[in-house]
Amino acid sequence: MKNKNLTLGIDIGGTKMLFACVEQGQIKGEILSYPTPDTSGAILECILEGIENFYPVKSIAIATAGTVNLENSKVTGSTGNLPGGYIGLELGKTLRERFKVPVLIENDANAAAYAEFRAGNAKNHGNTITITLGTGIGGGIIVEGKILKGTTGAAAEVGHIPITPEKKRKCTCGNWDCWEAYASGTAYHKYKDHDMWEEYVSMGLAALINIFEPESIILSGGMARIADYELLDKKVKNRVVMARTKILPAKFENYAGLIGAALLAEVELIEF
Amino acid sequence: MKNKNLTLGIDIGGTKMLFACVEQGQIKGEILSYPTPDTSGAILECILEGIENFYPVKSIAIATAGTVNLENSKVTGSTGNLPGGYIGLELGKTLRERFKVPVLIENDANAAAYAEFRAGNAKNHGNTITITLGTGIGGGIIVEGKILKGTTGAAAEVGHIPITPEKKRKCTCGNWDCWEAYASGTAYHKYKDHDMWEEYVSMGLAALINIFEPESIILSGGMARIADYELLDKKVKNRVVMARTKILPAKFENYAGLIGAALLAEVELIEF
Repeated sequence: MKNKNLTLGIDIGGTKMLFACVEQGQIKGEILSYPTPDTSGAILECILEGIENFYPVKSIAIATAGTVNLENSKVTGSTGNLPGGYIGLELGKTLRERFKVPVLIENDANAAAYAEFRAGNAKNHGNTITITLGTGIGGGIIVEGKILKGTTGAAAEVGHIPITPEKKRKCTCGNWDCWEAYASGTAYHKYKDHDMWEEYVSMGLAALINIFEPESIILSGGMARIADYELLDKKVKNRVVMARTKILPAKFENYAGLIGAALLAEVELIEF
Repeated sequence: MKNKNLTLGIDIGGTKMLFACVEQGQIKGEILSYPTPDTSGAILECILEGIENFYPVKSIAIATAGTVNLENSKVTGSTGNLPGGYIGLELGKTLRERFKVPVLIENDANAAAYAEFRAGNAKNHGNTITITLGTGIGGGIIVEGKILKGTTGAAAEVGHIPITPEKKRKCTCGNWDCWEAYASGTAYHKYKDHDMWEEYVSMGLAALINIFEPESIILSGGMARIADYELLDKKVKNRVVMARTKILPAKFENYAGLIGAALLAEVELIEF
C-alpha cells in the first residue's frame, strides 16, 4: 500500500518496457523491466501485469515511442519499432477504466526532455532541447517550460532536418539526407575520420540554436557518452549567430522517459 | 483628437520608417513614410515628429529591425542596416516619458508573423511561421499563439540554419552556408536553373516543418511573389515526415510589422 501516493512511471520502447514509482523526479523502490513483446495484445497484457505489481498508485504516467495526441491520452502515430496494432490500443481509456486512476501518455523523447528540464542537467532552463543520439535521432523541445507539441502532437522531428541538398544518403524515413542519416550512432560508424561526425552533429545543433536560442541542449543516448563536447562546442559556435547555448550530457538516461512522464503527470493531472 | 482611442503602429526598417494608426488589425486613416536617417539622433527626431502627427493616441507599438529584449521595451541587438547608436536609444523609456502612453517594441519579423496569425493568411493558426525572403531571410515563429522568443529574445534566426557542410558560400553573418546564402532574394539571382532556388528554400522550410509541425508557413517579402508554390510544396513534401503544413503567401506586406506590433500592443498592454 506504500505506493498509493506515488505516480507509476512506465516506459514503452521498442526493445524493453520499464516500470517504477516516481516522486518529484526520483525513483522510489524497485524497477521492473520486461522485453517488449511483438504483438499489441501481448504488450497490453504486459502493461497490465507490470501495473499490478505496483498498484494501488496515485496515477499512471507512460512515456512511449510514437506520436501521442495533444490530450496526452492516446498513441496516434506509427513507430517502426512497435507492432502496428499498438496504436489502436487506446491505452489511456483502457487503463483509466481498469485502475480508476488518472493516466497520462507522452512521447518518450518529449518526456525525456521534460525530465532534464525539471530535474536533470537542464534544471530550470525554461528553453531547452534534449537530443537523443542513438540508432536514430530523437528530440524533445521545451519552450517556456512547456513541451513543444505542434498542430497534432508530431513536432520535434529533429532527426529529419535536411542536412545537404546532395542526395547522398537515404534516411530510414524514405527521404534523402536527413540529419539522422549523418549524425546518429548508426552514421558514426561510417566515418573514417570521426571528426566528421561532430561536424554533422554541429549542423543540426546550430539549426536548433539559431531557431530556439535555448539555454541548453542536452545530449542523450549512447553517442552522448562518446561525443567530444569541446570539439562540438567549437563547431557549433562557428555556425550560430548570437546564442550562448550550453551543450551538456544528459543526467537521466534509461529512466529519463518514465521520470519525465511522472513529473509531467504531477503537473498535468492536478485537475483530476 | 480622433486617434486617442487607437494604437499608433510604427515600423523602423533599414530604408524607411512607417507610421499609421491601427484598430483591430486595420489601418485607420493616413500612412506616413520617411526615409530612415543614418544617425541614431536623426532617427529619434524622426520618430518624435512622426508621432506628433498622430498624437494623442492610446498607445505606441513599434516594429523594428534588430533584437528586442523580452519585456518588449528596448532594442538590444545590433543590426547591420541601422546605425550603431540606435541600440542605445532606450526608445521605450524615452517615448513613454514624452507621450505618457504605453509603448511596446517588437522585432519586425516577429511582429509580421503575429500580424499574419491574428489577422492575415494564418488567421487562427496557433502554430505558424512567417518567413521573409528578401535581401536576407528573416522569420517570426508563433507557438500556441505566442511569439517564440528564446532565452534573451534572439530566437527565430531562421536565415542561419546550416544548409550544407561543404563550405561553399560565406553568409553575411560571417559563417558558412547559412540558408539565406542559398535561398534569399540575393541568392536567387545566382542560379542559372531557377528551380535550384526552390530546392534550397524547401530545405529550410522542411527543417521548420519537421521541428514545429505548424499549420502554416507564410512567405513574405519580394521573393514570395515570385515563388512557385506548387513546386515548393512538392519539394517540401519530399523532405517532411508527417506534417501537412500549408505554404501560403503573406496577406500583409509593407505594413505587416506595424499592424502586428499594434495587434500585440492591444493584448500585451492591457495591464497598463
